[in-house]
Amino acid sequence: MLLNGSTFTSVHDVANLSALIEEGLRVKAAPLAWSNIGRHKTLGLIFFNPSLRTRLSSQRAAWNLGMNTLVVNVGTESWKIEMRDGVVMDGETVEHIKEGAAVIGAYTDILGVRAFATLTDKHADIGENVLSKVQQYACKPLVSLESALRHPLQSFADILTIEEVRREQRMKHRPKVVLTWAPHPKALPQAVANSFAEWMLRADVDLVITHPEGYALDEAFTQGAYITQCQDEALECADFVYAKNWSAFQGNDYGKVLLYDTSWTITAEKMRRTRNGKFMHCLPTRRNVEVADDVLDSSASLVIRQAENRVVAMQTVLKCILENL
Amino acid sequence: MLLNGSTFTSVHDVANLSALIEEGLRVKAAPLAWSNIGRHKTLGLIFFNPSLRTRLSSQRAAWNLGMNTLVVNVGTESWKIEMRDGVVMDGETVEHIKEGAAVIGAYTDILGVRAFATLTDKHADIGENVLSKVQQYACKPLVSLESALRHPLQSFADILTIEEVRREQRMKHRPKVVLTWAPHPKALPQAVANSFAEWMLRADVDLVITHPEGYALDEAFTQGAYITQCQDEALECADFVYAKNWSAFQGNDYGKVLLYDTSWTITAEKMRRTRNGKFMHCLPTRRNVEVADDVLDSSASLVIRQAENRVVAMQTVLKCILENL
Amino acid sequence: MLLNGSTFTSVHDVANLSALIEEGLRVKAAPLAWSNIGRHKTLGLIFFNPSLRTRLSSQRAAWNLGMNTLVVNVGTESWKIEMRDGVVMDGETVEHIKEGAAVIGAYTDILGVRAFATLTDKHADIGENVLSKVQQYACKPLVSLESALRHPLQSFADILTIEEVRREQRMKHRPKVVLTWAPHPKALPQAVANSFAEWMLRADVDLVITHPEGYALDEAFTQGAYITQCQDEALECADFVYAKNWSAFQGNDYGKVLLYDTSWTITAEKMRRTRNGKFMHCLPTRRNVEVADDVLDSSASLVIRQAENRVVAMQTVLKCILENL
Repeated sequence: MLLNGSTFTSVHDVANLSALIEEGLRVKAAPLAWSNIGRHKTLGLIFFNPSLRTRLSSQRAAWNLGMNTLVVNVGTESWKIEMRDGVVMDGETVEHIKEGAAVIGAYTDILGVRAFATLTDKHADIGENVLSKVQQYACKPLVSLESALRHPLQSFADILTIEEVRREQRMKHRPKVVLTWAPHPKALPQAVANSFAEWMLRADVDLVITHPEGYALDEAFTQGAYITQCQDEALECADFVYAKNWSAFQGNDYGKVLLYDTSWTITAEKMRRTRNGKFMHCLPTRRNVEVADDVLDSSASLVIRQAENRVVAMQTVLKCILENL
Repeated sequence: MLLNGSTFTSVHDVANLSALIEEGLRVKAAPLAWSNIGRHKTLGLIFFNPSLRTRLSSQRAAWNLGMNTLVVNVGTESWKIEMRDGVVMDGETVEHIKEGAAVIGAYTDILGVRAFATLTDKHADIGENVLSKVQQYACKPLVSLESALRHPLQSFADILTIEEVRREQRMKHRPKVVLTWAPHPKALPQAVANSFAEWMLRADVDLVITHPEGYALDEAFTQGAYITQCQDEALECADFVYAKNWSAFQGNDYGKVLLYDTSWTITAEKMRRTRNGKFMHCLPTRRNVEVADDVLDSSASLVIRQAENRVVAMQTVLKCILENL
Repeated sequence: MLLNGSTFTSVHDVANLSALIEEGLRVKAAPLAWSNIGRHKTLGLIFFNPSLRTRLSSQRAAWNLGMNTLVVNVGTESWKIEMRDGVVMDGETVEHIKEGAAVIGAYTDILGVRAFATLTDKHADIGENVLSKVQQYACKPLVSLESALRHPLQSFADILTIEEVRREQRMKHRPKVVLTWAPHPKALPQAVANSFAEWMLRADVDLVITHPEGYALDEAFTQGAYITQCQDEALECADFVYAKNWSAFQGNDYGKVLLYDTSWTITAEKMRRTRNGKFMHCLPTRRNVEVADDVLDSSASLVIRQAENRVVAMQTVLKCILENL
């Protein structure tokens, strides 16, 4: 059993992380070796927010296992969903999540759900309001496609990427992995950063997090990491540099952009501080804002490989769930 | 032959209703028993109006039979379609229904079409303007996914649900089925109510319809039902209570909301008048407007089972059509 | 080898046109004869512009070969893509084409791309800005689903249609094919006209092009055709009349509507000048603007057959590419 149950919403659902990574590498080596395991099964993909990589990689992963995929873009294709309990629905919402989730659950065998943080209602975000309601009412195995707090498929793809590079480079030492805040013109969720920290802290690496003042992440995700506000210090001798923007988490600044400081942009110049370090980003990325062209276009960049490994991550998770259906 | 031909747009296309119901129950018992019958065949699904249950259940039904599905959301994904004949197309419409339907017909083996009532052009609605044009020009077997006047797949799913419950409860008497108008903030078509009445009047049940003054449905659908404006009377000893809003049909009030009276909302209190009656609704439903939480969240509610049976209804219809292709 | 490589973006990618046509007719005769050749392979379909025929025919073609299809509607479903190099992405664009194309490439085996002319940036259009960037960064076999300058799948479907009619009618003479400009209320690209000219000039036909003053196409596509501004002269004894609107190409008029003159509309009256000529159009068409009802609704119209042959054209191209993967 690689997962604790038939849910994949955080690293806490993983029973054995190193075994899951090995399974991922096996899946990557032979993506069509289990092409009948999902035959006549349907993966539902519910997007409360837009997606590119996630939808495409999930569909490809499902097809590699013989599954069909049902895509629902809530709000654009469908109608507005009511999330509150006990409300008199005489306004704009047309269907309650209780029925919506139950019905989609009835038509599918496994559900994937994307529901970003609102960045305005911290209480709802911390409670994973949408994800937990879908899970409660759909009554089907659930895979998070990024929730308010986490993006576990991305983190799984990231750890697979790090593991691949480590083996290819025959890296003998415990890798130094740096998660660095990067500037961005818009307010973004903390999910990718939270999740990356949470996974790295369970992996065989040293995690350093660096961000400007005011950008501390929730300690629930970062406890155990070395945290510094000096990016240069963090980058020193790094093997992997993971750049990501997030908006403020702490206190009343929740969801706000406190700073737009391009001295935090990752450049080739900065990468020279690392130990021939590799650059990582979950994509999409703002070129020359989060990271300079000269990094993304160099051989140090792992971003496309990370994206490729999204198929592997999803396929491995689906395979685990299908084997226990 | 369970259908009269290769069209499913109303109960009049059903050759033998009780045999069709039996076939539906067989399909539900073994959904994958005909999983090659539709191999290399394509179901086209054309939506002139939004959909959730209908698209998803149709895709699942098609896949269970080995078919592929092509989804077209007219107006959102595609361009505006001209419906009028002889017009000089120098305005906003980009393609005529004659070409649009013929082309989609050419790419598919069976077509499903959703085209709601306009509620403003009664003549067009009664003539099933869009559905009939698609049928005329596409030249392919046609399944209605809800037209201006009817929603036959919903009614077939409803009758399957009633039949299942009747058997499970070993109901010996002829069931009393009540179709009750319910309040709603917006103007809705009569299609679900029309269709439900039409199907129930051919089934082995007693149908009672209740609605406020001014909400009489077209007699073409309701003739033979007992109709009362007293909801309490209607609910007395009911076995099944089917709630649905519809806008006015008669005369100049066509398509209007005449009343928003929540004394018509179905509550647990009202359900106590019934003979341990079951609650039904086609969904989506406005909670605490059409029906109270205490009904929807009780074991009396059949709404999710009705939604599940939408797959069964579509699959049974597709199977019948495929067997005669 | 019917194609020169694994790209299909113009007639110049065709190694042997008459052999490709023969292959197309073989595919049409037995569309399911190669239904496993694309098994476990994925066709990505990227639309920077809307589509009806192209998406549907591509999906059907792919399924006939056992492929899966991933559809991406850039801009509506996804986010805005940056096309410029070296730019600081602090504005509205969320992802650079470098990453976007590489990622979609990573999830697919063959890519289809639709990217219309802007009609405002002639330099970008002539350079096939979007198509060439996708090709450069996706690193996968590429099929044009209509680019700024060409619509090769349409032209291949058109030539298949002409060849079919020629054989059915046992036409012994070299057919006279007329490409005529037709009026339209909006500014349209030249791609269909360019492409049709380019293909016809390599086929065993006589091509005549007719258009009003100011509407000359790029000579790169039309050199070798007889060009006249007298539509009546062009139609004389024509075997095939292909109507299409395009906006001005030459000089500063690029992308403009210079004329809205319905004396250029193809009518039954005009078709009487032809040698019992057939009418062709790529669709969608504006009825009674580009062509009159009495032509489209007559047996002379080949437009639906052209649309059907879009499946054949795409399937033949995909089959060629799959055989060389």
